[in-house]
Amino acid sequence: MPYLNERMQSCVDECLRCYSVCLSTAMNHCLEVGGKHVEKNHFTLMMACCEMCRTAAHFMLLGSPHHRHTCRECAEICTECADDCERIGDMQECVEACRRCAESCRQMAA
Amino acid sequence: MPYLNERMQSCVDECLRCYSVCLSTAMNHCLEVGGKHVEKNHFTLMMACCEMCRTAAHFMLLGSPHHRHTCRECAEICTECADDCERIGDMQECVEACRRCAESCRQMAA
Amino acid sequence: MPYLNERMQSCVDECLRCYSVCLSTAMNHCLEVGGKHVEKNHFTLMMACCEMCRTAAHFMLLGSPHHRHTCRECAEICTECADDCERIGDMQECVEACRRCAESCRQMAA
Amino acid sequence: MPYLNERMQSCVDECLRCYSVCLSTAMNHCLEVGGKHVEKNHFTLMMACCEMCRTAAHFMLLGSPHHRHTCRECAEICTECADDCERIGDMQECVEACRRCAESCRQMAA
Repeated sequence: MPYLNERMQSCVDECLRCYSVCLSTAMNHCLEVGGKHVEKNHFTLMMACCEMCRTAAHFMLLGSPHHRHTCRECAEICTECADDCERIGDMQECVEACRRCAESCRQMAA
Repeated sequence: MPYLNERMQSCVDECLRCYSVCLSTAMNHCLEVGGKHVEKNHFTLMMACCEMCRTAAHFMLLGSPHHRHTCRECAEICTECADDCERIGDMQECVEACRRCAESCRQMAA
Repeated sequence: MPYLNERMQSCVDECLRCYSVCLSTAMNHCLEVGGKHVEKNHFTLMMACCEMCRTAAHFMLLGSPHHRHTCRECAEICTECADDCERIGDMQECVEACRRCAESCRQMAA
Repeated sequence: MPYLNERMQSCVDECLRCYSVCLSTAMNHCLEVGGKHVEKNHFTLMMACCEMCRTAAHFMLLGSPHHRHTCRECAEICTECADDCERIGDMQECVEACRRCAESCRQMAA
């Protein structure tokens, strides 16, 4: 995307990638498999992760100075989501997307 | 909305009200009037306010414990947006919606 | 919200109400109850309904002439969601919010 | 993203790319340059394009059969947005992202 520096562009990309992976995993894997995958706490965390990634990307694209706060929150939720997906298992792509996004957002928030 | 306690229901309503008022004001008043109303800083703040209100409402509806963080950030941005709309003038409905939303979100964040 | 005529204001309100009721029902009732409530088709329809309501409201607030198309699609999805919630049962508030929103969007799309 | 076929994955990517380019261009170019770039009709079209791209991507990720309708609408709005950005000038990256997204969405809607 134009008008953003390279570091921020890359963070937007990680956020939108994590949003895509988490949402498609929740809807097309967790709902199909059932059991632990649709427990209230886990599924809510995945939906919260999707929404926060979408929002963090939006704030960077807006050019709002508040992007540092939304990136900090995004890093926290993504880390929690990665841990929970690891605990449940079967969602390695999601774990990796969350960890990469968390790392990128942590740098933007600093 | 069902399954939320009364205080949270009321905060969701304030967030969605503030989102509606800010977005319709930015798009149908600021863009029509021009001048100070479309200065980068002011307009970006209004768009950031819309997005944060939408997100804070979403987290409460999800039932995510992270709603306290998104409500805290929402309170901050709404207060800033109210101040800036007051400075520019002509946007009393927006000022009031932002102040009410900020107050409600501050209580949810506590 | 200011700058919208009364009929459109009321449709925005119905959309945001339906979004709120569907999302809180899906996350705080369907996920808790499980069984038929988290079947892929039903849960996906509820999530699609939430997103379409949010988007239809957004287009009206933007003042975009394309709101007629997003309202038409919203009316269709809300009707489908109301029918499916009725079939499964236990979600009367959701059924009613969807039917009211569908009716309001249908008029805006005409 | 996992669980989507290759053609749909690629359409999600085009939608999120177009969303990113349009939003960053509107907020960081149009608002800075002013004049024709912040005329109500043009700016509203850019905001509508952002929202529709976000929504079309969301429906594909949800795995909802209604994605065909949201993709059809997305193709229409992107084409209009590309034409308008071309008319005003200075936004070649936006024109290209819109055309690519429109083409990809048109195929998904078929």
